[in-house]
Amino acid sequence: MDAFQDHYPDAVAHCFGCGRLNAHGHQIKTVWNGDETVTRFTPEPYHTAIPGFVYGGLVASLIDCHSTATAAAAMYRQDGRGLDTLPPFRFVTGSLHVDYLKPTPIDGALEIRGRAVEIKGRKVVVETELRAGGVVTARGTVVAVQMPADFGAAPPAPHR
Amino acid sequence: MDAFQDHYPDAVAHCFGCGRLNAHGHQIKTVWNGDETVTRFTPEPYHTAIPGFVYGGLVASLIDCHSTATAAAAMYRQDGRGLDTLPPFRFVTGSLHVDYLKPTPIDGALEIRGRAVEIKGRKVVVETELRAGGVVTARGTVVAVQMPADFGAAPPAPHR
Repeated sequence: MDAFQDHYPDAVAHCFGCGRLNAHGHQIKTVWNGDETVTRFTPEPYHTAIPGFVYGGLVASLIDCHSTATAAAAMYRQDGRGLDTLPPFRFVTGSLHVDYLKPTPIDGALEIRGRAVEIKGRKVVVETELRAGGVVTARGTVVAVQMPADFGAAPPAPHR
Repeated sequence: MDAFQDHYPDAVAHCFGCGRLNAHGHQIKTVWNGDETVTRFTPEPYHTAIPGFVYGGLVASLIDCHSTATAAAAMYRQDGRGLDTLPPFRFVTGSLHVDYLKPTPIDGALEIRGRAVEIKGRKVVVETELRAGGVVTARGTVVAVQMPADFGAAPPAPHR
């Protein structure tokens, strides 16, 4: 199944967290699973906090990009439109909240599951859980805000 | 002036955001400026969100590590102890909240300023502002929690 991020227009596909055109970045991929969205990501050994555990900034980053992707996918679904139809929906982060419930082990894949719990005009609220080895180690809430359709159309500095 | 992170014990100096022993990481450095703490960090061109602007996950990461460092420094100061005295104070993140006020330009240094606004037992609340070119683009609140003194003393996997 194509991931949401595979359909981002090129001008907005450079994000370090989720852009398929950012060779240095995480390039996360998010898909639907029923009414939930799912991202799996395997941290590198150097993404460490205390040795053996994942750095909290990575947890925040994964929740952030997973959530803006979920917001866009939820808007397409609400409109009954495919992910590759125009005009594109693309979201930025208005606010990010993460509760770190316990240390996240660094060995093995992480799974982030989320839901768009509220769609109100140009804002979508996304709630997420991050699991390591099936155990929830962090919870996130993101308020994602829809970008104007022409934002990013003329990139000032196309870093690749 | 030595940075707070220069005094972290080796066992807890591997964090991707702030560990001086993580060759792949950001290695941020935080110092006192009166009652405020200050971190300056220059993003790489690939730390992009929309081209030309900083990826929100980096903003969250910088605020996170700046805040745990500030929490430790505030505890040393409250106790009238130097940063290199034992036992060490070291904090992990209980919760992280970031409000993204406007896009953060990627060209040039970012400055994060913070204060420990509350110290209550093992918890320290740190409030921060992130500026680019003198303009505040994000605000953060971190609840930092003091680690047990022996946490990280026997690292399970010393990733460097």
